Amino acid sequence: MGSAFDPLVTLSDEPAVVNSPPSSNLTQDELKKIAAYKAVEYVKSGMVVGLGTGSTAKHAVARISELLREGKLKDIIGIPTSTTTHEQAVSLGIPLSDLDSHPVVDLSIDGADEVDPALNLVKGRGGSLLREKMIEGASKKFVVIVDESKLVKHIGGSGLAVPVEVVPFCCNFTAGKLEELFREAGCVAKLRRKIGSNGGEEAPAVTDNGNYVVDLYLERDIGDLDAASEAILKFPGVVEHGMFLGMATTLIVAGKFGVTVKDRFG
Amino acid sequence: MGSAFDPLVTLSDEPAVVNSPPSSNLTQDELKKIAAYKAVEYVKSGMVVGLGTGSTAKHAVARISELLREGKLKDIIGIPTSTTTHEQAVSLGIPLSDLDSHPVVDLSIDGADEVDPALNLVKGRGGSLLREKMIEGASKKFVVIVDESKLVKHIGGSGLAVPVEVVPFCCNFTAGKLEELFREAGCVAKLRRKIGSNGGEEAPAVTDNGNYVVDLYLERDIGDLDAASEAILKFPGVVEHGMFLGMATTLIVAGKFGVTVKDRFG
Repeated sequence: MGSAFDPLVTLSDEPAVVNSPPSSNLTQDELKKIAAYKAVEYVKSGMVVGLGTGSTAKHAVARISELLREGKLKDIIGIPTSTTTHEQAVSLGIPLSDLDSHPVVDLSIDGADEVDPALNLVKGRGGSLLREKMIEGASKKFVVIVDESKLVKHIGGSGLAVPVEVVPFCCNFTAGKLEELFREAGCVAKLRRKIGSNGGEEAPAVTDNGNYVVDLYLERDIGDLDAASEAILKFPGVVEHGMFLGMATTLIVAGKFGVTVKDRFG
Repeated sequence: MGSAFDPLVTLSDEPAVVNSPPSSNLTQDELKKIAAYKAVEYVKSGMVVGLGTGSTAKHAVARISELLREGKLKDIIGIPTSTTTHEQAVSLGIPLSDLDSHPVVDLSIDGADEVDPALNLVKGRGGSLLREKMIEGASKKFVVIVDESKLVKHIGGSGLAVPVEVVPFCCNFTAGKLEELFREAGCVAKLRRKIGSNGGEEAPAVTDNGNYVVDLYLERDIGDLDAASEAILKFPGVVEHGMFLGMATTLIVAGKFGVTVKDRFG
Protein backbone atom coordinates (compact mmCIF):
# COMPACT_ATOMS: atom_id res chain seq x y z
CA MET A 1 0.00 0.00 0.00
CA GLY A 2 2.96 2.36 0.65
CA SER A 3 1.38 4.61 3.26
CA ALA A 4 3.36 7.45 4.84
CA PHE A 5 3.62 5.16 7.84
CA ASP A 6 5.93 2.73 6.09
CA PRO A 7 9.34 4.40 6.51
CA LEU A 8 9.39 3.89 10.25
CA VAL A 9 8.56 0.23 9.99
CA THR A 10 10.56 -0.70 6.94
CA LEU A 11 13.71 1.38 7.42
CA SER A 12 14.22 0.66 11.11
CA ASP A 13 16.32 -2.13 12.58
CA GLU A 14 14.36 -2.09 15.79
CA PRO A 15 10.94 -3.56 16.43
CA ALA A 16 7.99 -1.22 16.37
CA VAL A 17 5.21 -1.86 18.83
CA VAL A 18 1.71 -1.30 17.53
CA ASN A 19 -0.55 -1.27 20.53
CA SER A 20 -3.73 0.53 19.64
CA PRO A 21 -6.60 -0.67 17.55
CA PRO A 22 -7.02 0.67 14.00
CA SER A 23 -9.11 3.81 13.80
CA SER A 24 -9.31 5.17 10.31
CA ASN A 25 -11.65 8.16 10.57
CA LEU A 26 -9.59 10.44 12.78
CA THR A 27 -8.50 13.98 11.91
CA GLN A 28 -4.85 14.99 12.07
CA ASP A 29 -5.51 16.85 15.32
CA GLU A 30 -7.14 13.77 16.84
CA LEU A 31 -4.08 11.72 15.85
CA LYS A 32 -1.84 14.32 17.54
CA LYS A 33 -3.96 14.05 20.68
CA ILE A 34 -3.71 10.25 20.72
CA ALA A 35 0.09 10.41 20.47
CA ALA A 36 0.22 13.09 23.19
CA TYR A 37 -1.94 11.11 25.62
CA LYS A 38 0.18 8.02 25.06
CA ALA A 39 3.34 10.08 25.85
CA VAL A 40 1.89 11.36 29.11
CA GLU A 41 1.69 7.75 30.31
CA TYR A 42 5.48 8.07 30.73
CA VAL A 43 5.08 10.90 33.25
CA LYS A 44 5.25 9.79 36.88
CA SER A 45 4.58 11.75 40.07
CA GLY A 46 7.58 13.74 41.31
CA MET A 47 9.09 14.24 37.87
CA VAL A 48 10.60 17.39 36.37
CA VAL A 49 8.98 17.48 32.91
CA GLY A 50 10.03 19.47 29.83
CA LEU A 51 6.88 20.85 28.19
CA GLY A 52 7.10 21.12 24.42
CA THR A 53 5.70 23.71 22.04
CA GLY A 54 3.31 23.37 19.14
CA SER A 55 0.02 21.86 18.08
CA THR A 56 0.89 18.32 19.25
CA ALA A 57 2.71 19.21 22.47
CA LYS A 58 -0.15 21.39 23.67
CA HIS A 59 -2.32 18.26 23.98
CA ALA A 60 0.34 16.72 26.25
CA VAL A 61 0.44 19.83 28.45
CA ALA A 62 -3.36 19.82 28.71
CA ARG A 63 -3.36 16.11 29.60
CA ILE A 64 -0.76 16.57 32.37
CA SER A 65 -2.89 19.33 33.86
CA GLU A 66 -5.95 17.06 33.72
CA LEU A 67 -4.16 14.24 35.55
CA LEU A 68 -2.89 16.70 38.18
CA ARG A 69 -6.42 17.95 38.78
CA GLU A 70 -7.71 14.38 39.05
CA GLY A 71 -4.96 13.60 41.59
CA LYS A 72 -3.52 10.87 39.35
CA LEU A 73 -0.25 12.81 39.12
CA LYS A 74 1.42 14.73 41.97
CA ASP A 75 4.48 16.97 42.49
CA ILE A 76 5.12 17.64 38.82
CA ILE A 77 7.41 20.54 37.92
CA GLY A 78 7.08 21.69 34.33
CA ILE A 79 9.90 23.36 32.35
CA PRO A 80 8.24 25.21 29.44
CA THR A 81 10.13 25.41 26.13
CA SER A 82 8.60 28.70 24.98
CA THR A 83 6.70 31.71 26.23
CA THR A 84 3.58 30.27 24.55
CA THR A 85 3.83 27.01 26.49
CA HIS A 86 4.67 28.97 29.63
CA GLU A 87 1.38 30.85 29.27
CA GLN A 88 -0.60 27.69 28.53
CA ALA A 89 0.89 25.88 31.55
CA VAL A 90 0.30 28.83 33.89
CA SER A 91 -3.33 29.07 32.75
CA LEU A 92 -3.75 25.33 33.47
CA GLY A 93 -2.14 25.58 36.92
CA ILE A 94 0.95 23.43 36.27
CA PRO A 95 3.80 24.42 38.66
CA LEU A 96 6.75 25.71 36.59
CA SER A 97 10.48 26.23 36.93
CA ASP A 98 13.51 26.55 34.63
CA LEU A 99 16.87 24.95 33.82
CA ASP A 100 18.78 27.32 36.09
CA SER A 101 16.89 25.84 39.06
CA HIS A 102 16.47 22.33 37.61
CA PRO A 103 19.45 21.55 35.37
CA VAL A 104 18.39 17.90 35.06
CA VAL A 105 15.00 17.14 33.50
CA ASP A 106 13.49 13.68 33.98
CA LEU A 107 11.41 13.60 30.83
CA SER A 108 10.51 15.94 27.99
CA ILE A 109 7.57 15.58 25.62
CA ASP A 110 7.47 17.50 22.37
CA GLY A 111 6.35 17.32 18.77
CA ALA A 112 8.60 17.47 15.71
CA ASP A 113 8.31 18.73 12.14
CA GLU A 114 10.17 15.76 10.69
CA VAL A 115 11.43 12.43 12.03
CA ASP A 116 13.89 10.29 10.09
CA PRO A 117 14.29 6.50 10.49
CA ALA A 118 17.16 6.98 13.01
CA LEU A 119 14.90 9.22 15.16
CA ASN A 120 16.74 12.38 14.14
CA LEU A 121 14.34 15.32 14.13
CA VAL A 122 13.71 18.64 12.51
CA LYS A 123 12.12 21.11 14.89
CA GLY A 124 11.64 24.84 15.06
CA ARG A 125 9.15 25.66 12.35
CA GLY A 126 7.29 27.19 15.28
CA GLY A 127 10.36 29.27 16.17
CA SER A 128 11.22 27.80 19.60
CA LEU A 129 14.06 25.51 18.59
CA LEU A 130 16.73 26.97 20.87
CA ARG A 131 14.84 26.68 24.15
CA GLU A 132 13.50 23.30 23.11
CA LYS A 133 17.01 22.05 22.36
CA MET A 134 18.39 23.32 25.67
CA ILE A 135 15.64 21.69 27.71
CA GLU A 136 15.31 18.48 25.73
CA GLY A 137 19.10 18.16 25.63
CA ALA A 138 19.09 18.29 29.45
CA SER A 139 16.47 15.51 29.66
CA LYS A 140 17.12 11.93 30.68
CA LYS A 141 14.25 10.84 28.40
CA PHE A 142 12.84 12.71 25.44
CA VAL A 143 9.55 11.41 24.06
CA VAL A 144 8.68 12.72 20.60
CA ILE A 145 5.05 12.72 19.53
CA VAL A 146 3.95 13.05 15.93
CA ASP A 147 1.22 12.06 13.54
CA GLU A 148 2.40 9.86 10.70
CA SER A 149 2.66 12.76 8.22
CA LYS A 150 5.91 13.80 9.94
CA LEU A 151 7.86 10.65 9.04
CA VAL A 152 10.49 11.24 6.35
CA LYS A 153 13.17 9.14 4.72
CA HIS A 154 15.78 11.86 5.29
CA ILE A 155 16.02 15.26 7.00
CA GLY A 156 14.52 17.92 4.76
CA GLY A 157 12.60 15.21 2.91
CA SER A 158 9.18 16.75 3.57
CA GLY A 159 10.07 19.67 1.32
CA LEU A 160 9.51 21.98 4.27
CA ALA A 161 12.32 23.94 5.87
CA VAL A 162 15.15 23.11 8.25
CA PRO A 163 15.19 26.28 10.41
CA VAL A 164 18.38 27.95 11.63
CA GLU A 165 18.27 30.63 14.34
CA VAL A 166 20.67 33.47 13.49
CA VAL A 167 21.63 36.82 15.02
CA PRO A 168 19.93 39.75 13.24
CA PHE A 169 23.33 41.38 12.51
CA CYS A 170 24.10 40.82 8.80
CA CYS A 171 21.55 38.00 8.59
CA ASN A 172 21.53 38.07 4.77
CA PHE A 173 25.26 37.39 4.80
CA THR A 174 24.71 34.41 7.10
CA ALA A 175 21.81 33.17 4.95
CA GLY A 176 24.08 33.30 1.89
CA LYS A 177 26.78 31.30 3.69
CA LEU A 178 24.23 28.64 4.70
CA GLU A 179 22.90 28.35 1.16
CA GLU A 180 26.45 27.97 -0.14
CA LEU A 181 27.21 25.27 2.44
CA PHE A 182 24.41 23.05 1.13
CA ARG A 183 24.66 24.03 -2.52
CA GLU A 184 25.10 20.39 -3.56
CA ALA A 185 21.78 19.51 -1.93
CA GLY A 186 20.07 22.27 -3.96
CA CYS A 187 19.60 24.43 -0.87
CA VAL A 188 17.58 27.64 -0.92
CA ALA A 189 17.93 29.79 2.23
CA LYS A 190 15.15 32.20 3.09
CA LEU A 191 14.86 34.67 5.96
CA ARG A 192 11.59 33.93 7.74
CA ARG A 193 9.16 36.85 7.76
CA LYS A 194 5.97 37.55 9.61
CA ILE A 195 2.85 37.14 7.56
CA GLY A 196 0.67 40.26 7.58
CA SER A 197 -3.10 40.34 7.87
CA ASN A 198 -3.32 40.61 4.07
CA GLY A 199 -1.24 37.45 3.69
CA GLY A 200 1.84 39.36 2.51
CA GLU A 201 5.33 39.07 4.01
CA GLU A 202 6.40 41.72 6.48
CA ALA A 203 9.33 42.32 8.87
CA PRO A 204 11.56 39.38 9.85
CA ALA A 205 10.01 36.98 12.37
CA VAL A 206 11.67 37.27 15.78
CA THR A 207 12.30 34.32 18.13
CA ASP A 208 11.80 34.26 21.91
CA ASN A 209 15.51 35.15 22.12
CA GLY A 210 15.31 38.21 19.88
CA ASN A 211 16.93 36.44 16.92
CA TYR A 212 15.86 35.77 13.31
CA VAL A 213 15.26 32.45 11.54
CA VAL A 214 16.75 31.38 8.21
CA ASP A 215 14.74 28.52 6.65
CA LEU A 216 16.77 26.06 4.59
CA TYR A 217 14.83 24.30 1.81
CA LEU A 218 16.72 21.22 0.65
CA GLU A 219 16.10 19.48 -2.66
CA ARG A 220 18.19 16.44 -1.80
CA ASP A 221 19.55 14.50 1.19
CA ILE A 222 22.45 16.39 2.84
CA GLY A 223 24.16 13.15 3.92
CA ASP A 224 26.24 13.15 7.12
CA LEU A 225 24.08 15.02 9.62
CA ASP A 226 26.73 15.37 12.34
CA ALA A 227 29.11 16.99 9.86
CA ALA A 228 26.31 19.27 8.64
CA SER A 229 25.49 20.26 12.23
CA GLU A 230 29.11 21.10 13.00
CA ALA A 231 29.51 23.15 9.81
CA ILE A 232 26.33 25.15 10.50
CA LEU A 233 27.29 25.90 14.10
CA LYS A 234 30.72 27.10 13.00
CA PHE A 235 29.25 30.17 11.26
CA PRO A 236 29.58 32.99 13.81
CA GLY A 237 26.14 34.41 12.94
CA VAL A 238 24.40 31.12 13.70
CA VAL A 239 22.90 30.64 17.16
CA GLU A 240 21.41 27.16 16.70
CA HIS A 241 19.80 24.90 14.10
CA GLY A 242 16.64 22.84 14.11
CA MET A 243 18.19 19.38 13.62
CA PHE A 244 17.88 17.40 16.85
CA LEU A 245 20.37 14.57 16.33
CA GLY A 246 20.51 11.56 18.61
CA MET A 247 18.33 13.27 21.21
CA ALA A 248 14.94 11.50 21.00
CA THR A 249 14.77 8.40 23.19
CA THR A 250 11.19 7.40 22.32
CA LEU A 251 9.04 8.11 19.29
CA ILE A 252 5.27 7.86 19.43
CA VAL A 253 3.49 7.98 16.07
CA ALA A 254 -0.25 8.19 15.71
CA GLY A 255 -1.53 7.01 12.37
CA LYS A 256 -4.75 5.84 10.87
CA PHE A 257 -3.83 2.28 11.74
CA GLY A 258 -3.03 2.98 15.38
CA VAL A 259 -0.26 4.19 17.66
CA THR A 260 3.31 3.00 17.23
CA VAL A 261 5.94 3.33 19.96
CA LYS A 262 9.60 3.07 19.11
CA ASP A 263 12.39 3.25 21.70
CA ARG A 264 15.83 4.35 20.68
CA PHE A 265 17.67 2.38 23.33
CA GLY A 266 16.40 -1.13 23.93
CA MET B 1 66.50 38.10 29.82
CA GLY B 2 63.22 36.23 29.31
CA SER B 3 61.05 39.14 28.19
CA ALA B 4 57.38 38.65 27.34
CA PHE B 5 58.51 38.96 23.74
CA ASP B 6 60.27 35.61 23.79
CA PRO B 7 57.39 33.16 23.16
CA LEU B 8 56.79 34.39 19.63
CA VAL B 9 60.44 34.07 18.69
CA THR B 10 61.34 30.92 20.52
CA LEU B 11 58.17 28.86 20.15
CA SER B 12 57.58 29.59 16.48
CA ASP B 13 58.85 27.53 13.57
CA GLU B 14 58.63 30.49 11.24
CA PRO B 15 61.08 33.38 10.98
CA ALA B 16 60.13 36.59 12.73
CA VAL B 17 61.03 39.86 11.06
CA VAL B 18 62.21 42.60 13.37
CA ASN B 19 62.18 45.81 11.41
CA SER B 20 62.08 48.74 13.78
CA PRO B 21 64.82 50.12 15.99
CA PRO B 22 64.74 49.43 19.72
CA SER B 23 62.80 51.95 21.73
CA SER B 24 62.60 51.10 25.36
CA ASN B 25 60.78 54.02 26.95
CA LEU B 26 57.40 53.65 25.28
CA THR B 27 54.12 53.26 27.15
CA GLN B 28 51.78 50.34 26.40
CA ASP B 29 49.51 52.70 24.47
CA GLU B 30 52.43 53.95 22.37
CA LEU B 31 53.33 50.34 21.56
CA LYS B 32 49.73 49.70 20.51
CA LYS B 33 49.89 52.73 18.23
CA ILE B 34 53.14 51.56 16.61
CA ALA B 35 51.61 48.16 15.84
CA ALA B 36 48.44 49.80 14.50
CA TYR B 37 50.31 52.15 12.19
CA LYS B 38 52.39 49.26 10.86
CA ALA B 39 49.19 47.33 10.09
CA VAL B 40 47.67 50.22 8.17
CA GLU B 41 50.59 49.95 5.72
CA TYR B 42 48.75 46.85 4.44
CA VAL B 43 45.70 48.92 3.49
CA LYS B 44 45.60 49.91 -0.20
CA SER B 45 43.23 52.28 -2.00
CA GLY B 46 40.00 50.65 -3.13
CA MET B 47 39.93 48.07 -0.34
CA VAL B 48 36.99 46.94 1.80
CA VAL B 49 38.50 47.02 5.30
CA GLY B 50 37.22 45.39 8.48
CA LEU B 51 37.67 47.84 11.35
CA GLY B 52 38.41 46.24 14.70
CA THR B 53 37.31 47.19 18.19
CA GLY B 54 39.34 48.08 21.26
CA SER B 55 42.21 50.16 22.50
CA THR B 56 44.69 48.97 19.83
CA ALA B 57 42.31 48.87 16.86
CA LYS B 58 41.12 52.42 17.50
CA HIS B 59 44.62 53.66 16.57
CA ALA B 60 44.34 51.84 13.23
CA VAL B 61 40.94 53.39 12.52
CA ALA B 62 42.31 56.86 13.33
CA ARG B 63 45.33 56.26 11.09
CA ILE B 64 43.16 55.18 8.13
CA SER B 65 41.11 58.34 8.52
CA GLU B 66 44.31 60.41 8.60
CA LEU B 67 45.61 58.83 5.35
CA LEU B 68 42.21 59.38 3.69
CA ARG B 69 42.27 63.05 4.66
CA GLU B 70 45.85 63.40 3.35
CA GLY B 71 44.79 61.78 0.05
CA LYS B 72 47.27 58.92 0.52
CA LEU B 73 44.37 56.43 0.61
CA LYS B 74 41.26 56.60 -1.59
CA ASP B 75 37.99 54.67 -2.01
CA ILE B 76 38.17 52.80 1.29
CA ILE B 77 35.00 51.17 2.59
CA GLY B 78 35.11 50.33 6.28
CA ILE B 79 33.13 47.48 7.88
CA PRO B 80 32.95 48.25 11.62
CA THR B 81 33.00 45.34 14.07
CA SER B 82 31.00 47.07 16.81
CA THR B 83 28.70 49.99 17.44
CA THR B 84 31.63 51.70 19.21
CA THR B 85 33.86 51.44 16.15
CA HIS B 86 30.93 52.45 13.95
CA GLU B 87 30.63 55.66 15.95
CA GLN B 88 34.38 56.34 15.86
CA ALA B 89 34.56 55.77 12.08
CA VAL B 90 31.52 57.95 11.41
CA SER B 91 33.00 60.76 13.51
CA LEU B 92 36.25 60.47 11.49
CA GLY B 93 34.45 60.49 8.14
CA ILE B 94 35.35 56.94 6.99
CA PRO B 95 32.72 55.62 4.50
CA LEU B 96 31.06 52.54 6.00
CA SER B 97 29.09 49.51 4.86
CA ASP B 98 28.29 46.02 6.15
CA LEU B 99 28.67 42.33 5.28
CA ASP B 100 25.21 42.15 3.71
CA SER B 101 26.41 44.63 1.04
CA HIS B 102 30.08 43.52 1.01
CA PRO B 103 30.25 39.81 1.83
CA VAL B 104 33.97 39.68 0.96
CA VAL B 105 36.35 41.86 2.98
CA ASP B 106 39.86 42.50 1.59
CA LEU B 107 41.60 43.07 4.89
CA SER B 108 40.67 43.33 8.56
CA ILE B 109 42.77 44.89 11.30
CA ASP B 110 42.04 44.17 14.94
CA GLY B 111 43.63 43.69 18.32
CA ALA B 112 43.49 40.54 20.44
CA ASP B 113 43.49 39.71 24.12
CA GLU B 114 45.81 36.71 23.70
CA VAL B 115 47.89 35.29 20.84
CA ASP B 116 49.41 31.81 21.03
CA PRO B 117 52.49 30.66 19.03
CA ALA B 118 50.26 29.26 16.23
CA LEU B 119 48.53 32.66 15.86
CA ASN B 120 45.33 31.43 17.50
CA LEU B 121 43.66 34.29 19.36
CA VAL B 122 41.41 35.03 22.28
CA LYS B 123 39.17 38.01 21.63
CA GLY B 124 36.03 39.45 23.10
CA ARG B 125 37.00 40.79 26.49
CA GLY B 126 35.52 43.98 25.07
CA GLY B 127 32.28 42.16 24.25
CA SER B 128 32.31 42.38 20.42
CA LEU B 129 33.52 38.90 19.59
CA LEU B 130 30.58 37.83 17.45
CA ARG B 131 30.63 40.71 14.97
CA GLU B 132 34.42 40.62 14.92
CA LYS B 133 34.39 36.91 14.10
CA MET B 134 31.81 37.34 11.33
CA ILE B 135 33.73 40.16 9.66
CA GLU B 136 37.24 38.83 10.21
CA GLY B 137 36.13 35.38 9.09
CA ALA B 138 34.93 36.95 5.82
CA SER B 139 38.32 38.63 5.26
CA LYS B 140 40.97 37.56 2.76
CA LYS B 141 43.64 38.89 5.12
CA PHE B 142 43.37 39.44 8.85
CA VAL B 143 46.15 41.47 10.46
CA VAL B 144 46.29 41.20 14.25
CA ILE B 145 47.97 43.97 16.20
CA VAL B 146 49.10 43.60 19.80
CA ASP B 147 51.66 44.80 22.24
CA GLU B 148 53.96 42.09 23.52
CA SER B 149 52.02 41.62 26.76
CA LYS B 150 49.37 39.69 24.77
CA LEU B 151 51.65 36.81 23.75
CA VAL B 152 50.89 33.57 25.60
CA LYS B 153 52.18 30.02 25.45
CA HIS B 154 48.63 28.64 25.29
CA ILE B 155 45.07 29.95 25.06
CA GLY B 156 43.92 31.07 28.53
CA GLY B 157 47.56 31.34 29.60
CA SER B 158 47.32 35.01 30.60
CA GLY B 159 45.03 34.07 33.48
CA LEU B 160 42.38 36.32 31.96
CA ALA B 161 39.13 34.97 30.56
CA VAL B 162 38.12 33.20 27.38
CA PRO B 163 34.71 34.81 26.73
CA VAL B 164 31.67 32.92 25.44
CA GLU B 165 28.59 34.79 24.17
CA VAL B 166 25.41 33.05 25.38
CA VAL B 167 21.68 33.64 25.10
CA PRO B 168 20.24 35.17 28.29
CA PHE B 169 17.71 32.31 28.61
CA CYS B 170 18.94 30.02 31.43
CA CYS B 171 22.47 31.44 31.21
CA ASN B 172 23.46 29.97 34.57
CA PHE B 173 22.64 26.53 33.23
CA THR B 174 24.84 27.18 30.19
CA ALA B 175 27.64 28.55 32.39
CA GLY B 176 27.51 25.38 34.47
CA LYS B 177 27.75 23.21 31.35
CA LEU B 178 30.78 25.17 30.12
CA GLU B 179 32.54 24.88 33.47
CA GLU B 180 31.89 21.13 33.46
CA LEU B 181 33.27 20.81 29.91
CA PHE B 182 36.66 22.18 30.97
CA ARG B 183 36.72 20.74 34.48
CA GLU B 184 40.06 19.03 33.83
CA ALA B 185 41.63 22.40 32.98
CA GLY B 186 40.43 23.80 36.32
CA CYS B 187 37.82 25.97 34.63
CA VAL B 188 35.77 28.55 36.51
CA ALA B 189 32.86 30.05 34.51
CA LYS B 190 31.54 33.46 35.51
CA LEU B 191 28.67 35.47 34.07
CA ARG B 192 30.08 38.88 33.13
CA ARG B 193 28.41 41.76 34.97
CA LYS B 194 28.49 45.49 34.54
CA ILE B 195 30.62 47.32 37.06
CA GLY B 196 28.70 50.02 38.87
CA SER B 197 29.96 53.50 39.73
CA ASN B 198 30.89 52.26 43.22
CA GLY B 199 32.99 49.44 41.71
CA GLY B 200 30.45 46.75 42.62
CA GLU B 201 28.97 44.20 40.23
CA GLU B 202 25.54 44.91 38.81
CA ALA B 203 23.24 43.45 36.14
CA PRO B 204 24.71 41.11 33.46
CA ALA B 205 26.70 42.88 30.74
CA VAL B 206 24.83 42.85 27.41
CA THR B 207 26.54 42.48 24.01
CA ASP B 208 25.72 44.41 20.82
CA ASN B 209 23.47 41.45 19.94
CA GLY B 210 21.49 41.50 23.18
CA ASN B 211 23.25 38.45 24.62
CA TYR B 212 25.27 37.80 27.79
CA VAL B 213 28.92 36.77 28.19
CA VAL B 214 30.22 33.85 30.25
CA ASP B 215 33.94 34.28 31.03
CA LEU B 216 35.92 31.06 31.30
CA TYR B 217 38.99 31.22 33.54
CA LEU B 218 41.31 28.31 32.81
CA GLU B 219 44.01 27.10 35.18
CA ARG B 220 45.66 24.83 32.65
CA ASP B 221 46.02 24.34 28.87
CA ILE B 222 42.79 22.93 27.38
CA GLY B 223 44.69 21.02 24.67
CA ASP B 224 42.99 20.45 21.29
CA LEU B 225 41.46 23.83 20.45
CA ASP B 226 39.39 22.65 17.48
CA ALA B 227 37.77 19.97 19.63
CA ALA B 228 37.16 22.54 22.37
CA SER B 229 35.58 24.93 19.87
CA GLU B 230 33.26 22.26 18.52
CA ALA B 231 32.20 21.16 22.00
CA ILE B 232 31.44 24.74 23.10
CA LEU B 233 29.41 25.52 19.97
CA LYS B 234 27.35 22.37 20.45
CA PHE B 235 25.69 23.74 23.59
CA PRO B 236 22.37 25.19 22.41
CA GLY B 237 22.66 28.21 24.68
CA VAL B 238 26.03 29.24 23.21
CA VAL B 239 26.04 31.80 20.41
CA GLU B 240 29.79 32.07 19.83
CA HIS B 241 33.13 31.88 21.67
CA GLY B 242 36.16 34.15 21.72
CA MET B 243 38.75 31.72 20.36
CA PHE B 244 39.70 32.75 16.82
CA LEU B 245 41.41 29.65 15.45
CA GLY B 246 43.41 29.68 12.22
CA MET B 247 41.97 33.07 11.25
CA ALA B 248 44.88 35.52 11.66
CA THR B 249 47.09 35.75 8.56
CA THR B 250 49.56 38.31 9.93
CA LEU B 251 50.59 39.20 13.46
CA ILE B 252 52.21 42.51 14.30
CA VAL B 253 53.71 42.78 17.77
CA ALA B 254 55.05 45.99 19.20
CA GLY B 255 57.51 45.48 22.04
CA LYS B 256 60.19 47.48 23.75
CA PHE B 257 62.75 46.09 21.31
CA GLY B 258 60.80 47.00 18.18
CA VAL B 259 58.05 45.76 15.91
CA THR B 260 57.84 42.12 14.84
CA VAL B 261 55.80 40.98 11.84
CA LYS B 262 54.87 37.34 11.48
CA ASP B 263 52.94 35.94 8.52
CA ARG B 264 50.96 32.77 8.90
CA PHE B 265 51.32 31.65 5.31
CA GLY B 266 54.81 32.09 3.83
